[in-house]
Amino acid sequence: MEEKKNIPYKIYLEESEMPTQWYNVRADMPTKPAPLLNPATMQPLKAEELEPIFCKELIKQELDNDTKFIDIPDEVLSFYKMYRPSPLVHAEFLEKALGTPAKIFYKFEGNNTSGSHKLNSAIAQVYYAKKQGLKGVTTETGAGQWGTALSMACQYFGLDCQVYMVKCSYEQKPFRREVMRTYGAKVTPSPSNTTEVGRKILAEHPGTTGSLGCAISEAVEAAVTQEGYRYELGSVLNQVLLHQTIIGLEVQKACKKYGIKPDILIGCTGGGSNLGGFATPFIGEMLRGEADYKIIAAEPASCPSFTKGKFAYDFCDTGRICPLAKMYTLGSQFIPSANHAGGLRFHGMSTILSQLYHDGVFECRAVEQTEVFKAAVTFARAEGILPAPESSHAIKIAIDEALKCKETGEEKTIIFNLSGTGYFDLVAYGKYNDGVMTDGIPTENELEQYFAQLPKAE
Amino acid sequence: MEEKKNIPYKIYLEESEMPTQWYNVRADMPTKPAPLLNPATMQPLKAEELEPIFCKELIKQELDNDTKFIDIPDEVLSFYKMYRPSPLVHAEFLEKALGTPAKIFYKFEGNNTSGSHKLNSAIAQVYYAKKQGLKGVTTETGAGQWGTALSMACQYFGLDCQVYMVKCSYEQKPFRREVMRTYGAKVTPSPSNTTEVGRKILAEHPGTTGSLGCAISEAVEAAVTQEGYRYELGSVLNQVLLHQTIIGLEVQKACKKYGIKPDILIGCTGGGSNLGGFATPFIGEMLRGEADYKIIAAEPASCPSFTKGKFAYDFCDTGRICPLAKMYTLGSQFIPSANHAGGLRFHGMSTILSQLYHDGVFECRAVEQTEVFKAAVTFARAEGILPAPESSHAIKIAIDEALKCKETGEEKTIIFNLSGTGYFDLVAYGKYNDGVMTDGIPTENELEQYFAQLPKAE
Repeated sequence: MEEKKNIPYKIYLEESEMPTQWYNVRADMPTKPAPLLNPATMQPLKAEELEPIFCKELIKQELDNDTKFIDIPDEVLSFYKMYRPSPLVHAEFLEKALGTPAKIFYKFEGNNTSGSHKLNSAIAQVYYAKKQGLKGVTTETGAGQWGTALSMACQYFGLDCQVYMVKCSYEQKPFRREVMRTYGAKVTPSPSNTTEVGRKILAEHPGTTGSLGCAISEAVEAAVTQEGYRYELGSVLNQVLLHQTIIGLEVQKACKKYGIKPDILIGCTGGGSNLGGFATPFIGEMLRGEADYKIIAAEPASCPSFTKGKFAYDFCDTGRICPLAKMYTLGSQFIPSANHAGGLRFHGMSTILSQLYHDGVFECRAVEQTEVFKAAVTFARAEGILPAPESSHAIKIAIDEALKCKETGEEKTIIFNLSGTGYFDLVAYGKYNDGVMTDGIPTENELEQYFAQLPKAE
Repeated sequence: MEEKKNIPYKIYLEESEMPTQWYNVRADMPTKPAPLLNPATMQPLKAEELEPIFCKELIKQELDNDTKFIDIPDEVLSFYKMYRPSPLVHAEFLEKALGTPAKIFYKFEGNNTSGSHKLNSAIAQVYYAKKQGLKGVTTETGAGQWGTALSMACQYFGLDCQVYMVKCSYEQKPFRREVMRTYGAKVTPSPSNTTEVGRKILAEHPGTTGSLGCAISEAVEAAVTQEGYRYELGSVLNQVLLHQTIIGLEVQKACKKYGIKPDILIGCTGGGSNLGGFATPFIGEMLRGEADYKIIAAEPASCPSFTKGKFAYDFCDTGRICPLAKMYTLGSQFIPSANHAGGLRFHGMSTILSQLYHDGVFECRAVEQTEVFKAAVTFARAEGILPAPESSHAIKIAIDEALKCKETGEEKTIIFNLSGTGYFDLVAYGKYNDGVMTDGIPTENELEQYFAQLPKAE
């Protein structure tokens, strides 16, 4: 492999080499993702029905199954410059620690204050809100990465940012809250007295510490009841996957520049923004018959949408007020057990990834949390970066694959997406260090109960 | 300024361009820093007197006033590759936010899990300990950045790492403790029952939450009483400044490569590792008559060693068991008031920087904490990086200088060292966001009381 000799430890593209368009994998999909349904009529949602909630340009992107490449606005490219291109790192210290002949690379998306890839879509969504002349945006946040990213983006474009943060996170994890406030966001513990739905929940459950489903409901209500506000979301949606393709497009360019030919590509999946952004540019090559890759989704065994879920229409929120999507789902009432990878707790999945998985384009493996943290610590000690629990699901699979190569002697090239850092996840690391971490895998019986509540949509 | 047109937002040197030697400014100093004194004899310390505490090779570096460049060992260069070269960033978003004609650049040392520049010296010190065949090293940590860096370095070279962490930090700031444990370090809250000095303090003050001075005493005792252990320190020492010159040497190379000619260089000062590492390569040019720069140390008004201290021999620790150094000092009994820039609370200062300051080579400005956080928030919002409180002292001065340029219309080039990130300092940011932060400036009377306790050494 002569051409690999000169690969640096970290590959940074030149600014002039940065992608200037996002890639829309739907244009290459033989079967398009199923449309969202209006929960009242059970009919496909039209653009105008979405306008009270989302920006017009983002609705266009959400519904566009045809345009293969979409220009990244100059203002967004300018912001990307602040933390992009992110490096593609040749994990030679990890290779050495594992004693594997495999070549391992990781794309590192954690080198920004939001701590993850979430900023890629936040800045795009806020740009379109600004362009539409809006005053501000609302959102919900659990662990806080998406809320932080949106706060940073709003601060940059001068828009108001209202974040509904699940109350128990607000109280127990004050650090991300302070980052958001530092970026000028108004952070409200949810449920709150500021919305009708919040007041109703507080009246019924005075001691509740909130849930993501409730925070979503409050954020949507706040968006539709305030003049000049819209709601923005950090995963699941087609528009989010589109914006996140900047990750995979940079990896493609870096591979081309240095003659790296990946055999295996790995990303974790919660709602799909991470794997979708990282892998769909490569999936496009597969769909067009230009290349073949083994693509692996890494999901938590505690919230196993792909490996244990049904491919069916379901509500996107616990409160059943949001549209229905055809996706791999554990049922909208599914509540995962205590699981520290806060970003991977969603019961459903991106409709794009769901269709691609259904069509057999990629595989998925569910991994247990204790094994994930074991892999995280191995990686942290070898490569010097403390990874996010979410990203560590991908690390676990990458290490498994590299150890298989050690057995077989194969020199496969493995690339995974290190989507974020674990600096705000040290309570979880502490539990692992103390040996008191659990896996929280749902039983078949539990899953059946949630499946029984799926809507009859088709 | 034609040559500045093609400067990218982030300048990354190629791996092949990385410095391979550290720079020892003492070789260029007309007046060498005064020697350390043995507290028992008040005579200059000899190498053999230091050997129970420090590694031999590090003692050689500590006492070497003559060798201008010292080779960086290959093993250290290999580790540096993991997080270096760090970028020199053209702060164009900050320039725009300030509306200044000044050109502002910052060297960003925070892109590693220790969160600061401390790793540069930690890996070197642990390398020499390993080379000497030692089993492990001991140290103390307050805020935790140095302890984290040493844990990472020890994990890399397979040495045992024992960290004495000030008890109140251990209890109130568990996150850095967990990072250290994740890297395999043994973290002990200080004072502890594991040392004689710890037991003595606990017997006298059963409820104490510890101090840095006490943790130093425990770490030194642990080093000298265990076979195969030595003590390592993250600032103040000549060896530390030497290792940290990798920062300034990279800046010099980046400036040369892109034709950037700095007018002003700024770094914060606590014990001196940051400014010393960043600025001494440039100070060397000044001492050799090759260039002229305005170099500014930024220190906290709550612990103003340079601007209010005496240039005199003093103990380096509160317990008065460590050697005496001739330095700018507020007195070894000085206790700064609550100040969130944990890395800038030392009562004394590097002997190298003290001599250079005494000789008028650079100036110093003391800045108040609330102003520092105001600058930190301005920077975070403009450039997308949440800065460490320590580094934000330099940001404050950089902004002041840039605003002066705005008044005069001068296009000065300002470079400062952004030595770390603030991800573990969000309690302090919270206090600032809530408007309850204070400055804690000592009065002249308080300072006089501490000065009265200075030893009579000369």
